Amino acid sequence: MISSMRLKSNLVAPGILKKFFSSAPSASVSTSHLIPKSKPRHFITLEDYSPSEIFALLEKARGFKKIVKNQPLSEAEKHLKNSLATSNLSGKTVAIMFNKRSTRTRIATESSVNFLGGSSMFLSSSDIQLGVNESLLDSSIVISSMVDGIVARVHSHNDILELAKYSTVPVINALSDDSHPTQILADLLTMYEIFSKPSQSIKDALQGLNVSWVGDSNNMLYEFLTAFPKCGINLSAATPKKYPVPQKFIDLGSSGPGTLKLGDSPTDAISNSNVIITDTWVSMGQESEKAQRLLDFKGYQINDSLINAAGPAENYVFMHCLPRKPEEVSDSVFYGDRSFVFQEAENRKYTIMAVVHSLLIENGKL
Amino acid sequence: MISSMRLKSNLVAPGILKKFFSSAPSASVSTSHLIPKSKPRHFITLEDYSPSEIFALLEKARGFKKIVKNQPLSEAEKHLKNSLATSNLSGKTVAIMFNKRSTRTRIATESSVNFLGGSSMFLSSSDIQLGVNESLLDSSIVISSMVDGIVARVHSHNDILELAKYSTVPVINALSDDSHPTQILADLLTMYEIFSKPSQSIKDALQGLNVSWVGDSNNMLYEFLTAFPKCGINLSAATPKKYPVPQKFIDLGSSGPGTLKLGDSPTDAISNSNVIITDTWVSMGQESEKAQRLLDFKGYQINDSLINAAGPAENYVFMHCLPRKPEEVSDSVFYGDRSFVFQEAENRKYTIMAVVHSLLIENGKL
Amino acid sequence: MISSMRLKSNLVAPGILKKFFSSAPSASVSTSHLIPKSKPRHFITLEDYSPSEIFALLEKARGFKKIVKNQPLSEAEKHLKNSLATSNLSGKTVAIMFNKRSTRTRIATESSVNFLGGSSMFLSSSDIQLGVNESLLDSSIVISSMVDGIVARVHSHNDILELAKYSTVPVINALSDDSHPTQILADLLTMYEIFSKPSQSIKDALQGLNVSWVGDSNNMLYEFLTAFPKCGINLSAATPKKYPVPQKFIDLGSSGPGTLKLGDSPTDAISNSNVIITDTWVSMGQESEKAQRLLDFKGYQINDSLINAAGPAENYVFMHCLPRKPEEVSDSVFYGDRSFVFQEAENRKYTIMAVVHSLLIENGKL
Repeated sequence: MISSMRLKSNLVAPGILKKFFSSAPSASVSTSHLIPKSKPRHFITLEDYSPSEIFALLEKARGFKKIVKNQPLSEAEKHLKNSLATSNLSGKTVAIMFNKRSTRTRIATESSVNFLGGSSMFLSSSDIQLGVNESLLDSSIVISSMVDGIVARVHSHNDILELAKYSTVPVINALSDDSHPTQILADLLTMYEIFSKPSQSIKDALQGLNVSWVGDSNNMLYEFLTAFPKCGINLSAATPKKYPVPQKFIDLGSSGPGTLKLGDSPTDAISNSNVIITDTWVSMGQESEKAQRLLDFKGYQINDSLINAAGPAENYVFMHCLPRKPEEVSDSVFYGDRSFVFQEAENRKYTIMAVVHSLLIENGKL
Repeated sequence: MISSMRLKSNLVAPGILKKFFSSAPSASVSTSHLIPKSKPRHFITLEDYSPSEIFALLEKARGFKKIVKNQPLSEAEKHLKNSLATSNLSGKTVAIMFNKRSTRTRIATESSVNFLGGSSMFLSSSDIQLGVNESLLDSSIVISSMVDGIVARVHSHNDILELAKYSTVPVINALSDDSHPTQILADLLTMYEIFSKPSQSIKDALQGLNVSWVGDSNNMLYEFLTAFPKCGINLSAATPKKYPVPQKFIDLGSSGPGTLKLGDSPTDAISNSNVIITDTWVSMGQESEKAQRLLDFKGYQINDSLINAAGPAENYVFMHCLPRKPEEVSDSVFYGDRSFVFQEAENRKYTIMAVVHSLLIENGKL
Repeated sequence: MISSMRLKSNLVAPGILKKFFSSAPSASVSTSHLIPKSKPRHFITLEDYSPSEIFALLEKARGFKKIVKNQPLSEAEKHLKNSLATSNLSGKTVAIMFNKRSTRTRIATESSVNFLGGSSMFLSSSDIQLGVNESLLDSSIVISSMVDGIVARVHSHNDILELAKYSTVPVINALSDDSHPTQILADLLTMYEIFSKPSQSIKDALQGLNVSWVGDSNNMLYEFLTAFPKCGINLSAATPKKYPVPQKFIDLGSSGPGTLKLGDSPTDAISNSNVIITDTWVSMGQESEKAQRLLDFKGYQINDSLINAAGPAENYVFMHCLPRKPEEVSDSVFYGDRSFVFQEAENRKYTIMAVVHSLLIENGKL
């Protein structure tokens, strides 16, 4: 899920591009007085959240799932449910601004905001093009002055940072070229649901799981590197040599306690895995590279023979953030009984609900 | 209102098209375990609803109309109104997914959902293209796991069936190539309002009415055939010889107690009619056939001289599902005092509200 | 912000264009029986509102701003806040129909409607094209029969008049070629906030302010002419000779008690000004005229040297309705500490909230 914008922007000097597209203020003018003095807590990448904060978000997401599904609640979950009667989003508006199409993230966000009593306002790229026609600075100040929260899907990670810099309300990153933190929360919740023993804490259930990634060097993998080892998960990733991982994310993934293994062999990555994950090889904006990419990723399809050759853990499962294309995973694996892709998709809702609740209702307290 | 998709799909072997467009699973893979065990009640065509269920929906729609308009209520209507305080859509989300543009259906649905306390999420074909990029199977499972109901407008009737097959929440058909059940409910409510005597039941008021259709062989007529004779309405339809009615719908329309007359003579159809109905000759997706169709439907325009020549019932009225084009009905008839087209349009709201209430709040009980 | 539609429509006889685009009824057919007998109060231009009504709207907007921001309230504002518990938009739907893109107006409207307990339904020009496919008459009757209010952004001012003519619910003009009344309310509220002395009434605070306009002869200026002098504000405007002001608006601006000065000299206009306002020189739809317009408006950029040469009042401020382009105002002025553009933008929300509250909840009583 990397866009072509980052690639294209290399063709033009960044300053020129910015000037041309966005009427951004010239460097000689100070805009620092426009940065809000009291900054709200944002959700840009899991790098900004400690493991215990991540576990707290997952705990809350699990509670919301049980509340929505009318399941028996723990005392803490009853408390969460009762709190919604007075602490909710009634009368509030959340702007959902997507420069790239989305289905899951949009539906998860809108239905979460609605469940919490608020209203969503969806702005597609045909409604507003962040950074085009108007500078991100101007858009951030204006929009944040009228709404109670912003969920944004952008191309360049710098755009989400610029948006957050001037916003007076929480900004939630719903996908950038570098990060996809709401997806990773859903993956973690799903792993917890699959592998936890009765009354085991989320932290303990995730501790020591072996997760493998076989695919592109993209924002999904970058966010895994950011979040998994620091939460105690062992990560093993295979990307083709031509698609290396930026050093920044290798460093993030190397700070343990979970282990990190990087390479280009799908079988090495999958060996001993509890969870096998992949994603499309051709993200939005990369359509022109499709033919080349299909060649580059030869041998990376997750299918029964690759899995058998690699030897995953006995209780292995398959996950995918969707939408899937048949290239990267065979029908038999994707629709098989080891596949938890639909449970993973549904969990987008409860994890986003937890983030929205924590940032917009509880002021970022976790 | 028939789309070109059905026509175009004849040019390509269906299997190829499906594979190409939707990444649907190959036939060798079983997906039956993905069909929900406990199926919600859907609203796909009035074929699935008994006459007494149709009358109950109309009764409820009439109640909602009076509630919204602050009119005096019967005891049953007071009960309906009071029930909304606790049985409503608060916190719930209804996905409205339209592969074809709509005005009336969308506004009727959104305003109904809002009135019932819920939130609508409108997904146009630029937001999501059902069956494109992602299989209908995948979309159905994912979307239905996050929302509380789905209102969908598709091209092929098979698409709405596929959507409903895997959905865990009620699916309401807001137009397919074969069916348009929410429109037909609005037509029935309008006829009841026009022709009922004081304190007459809906069933009795509709019994024995003569309704004529002069126009295309399309989903409006097919749904009339499905619903009218079985509700005791006599249906008389004229379509050009070149546009015959599929046998399936002739069979549905022949199962009485209302009578059925099919032919190609507009005057024969209109003769003795209480209600004259037509629709556009050139539905969405048929624009390329427009010139030919204008020739084929020569003599089918509903105008004063055709009506006078045909001799309808003394109390005849005119109806049209909108939007209208001047070809199929003259200004003087369309804007005349026998025209109930705007009341018919407004009734889209209350009939859809009744369907949403029955399926999403009352679990399909009627 | 003038669209090209008005210009283009000169190329074709208006009747032909209308027939072609909108299937409007032929002149020989009477549609007067379709005009609602009891007309709701609309908000089309400030010409229809007396100064005391304008001040009352501003008073209410100021109250809403304090309510939303949890600031200390006067007795009247407490009363307004408490009234929302029972007098709100719960269960109601406001249709927002924009034939032209908007960011501020849309966000301000949706967040206002949400705050008042209602639901917004946004219809872009890809969802509905007012006057295309279906006549404005038909659209107005149908849509107003299903919603509780309409906020519309159109090209031709006649379109908003036609929409209001047949609507059974209030129509709010969110920009037409001639008028932009919601923007002007936001400008007035901002001036009040900047220039009022403690406990001064809005009327007294605005009285005698000198406001200058340097820029295009467009709907912003027309609405200034309509509202400012009649509210006691002195207006001084400079437009290039090639872009004269229509006599109708000169007449409106000449009816005092504020003074009016029209000319083509930016320095003359700005001299002694308390408030300097401009807008883009190239509105939506005028992109093809851009090169010529940049020439025509040479010398009209608001920058430090123009301001210094002109000699505004000591306490002068700068305002702009956004989005801005660098041509019409320099970075140093736009982002400088005399600039109130972002406060002005935020005030769009509270002024629109006041209009929606007055028309949809209080039935137009002011």
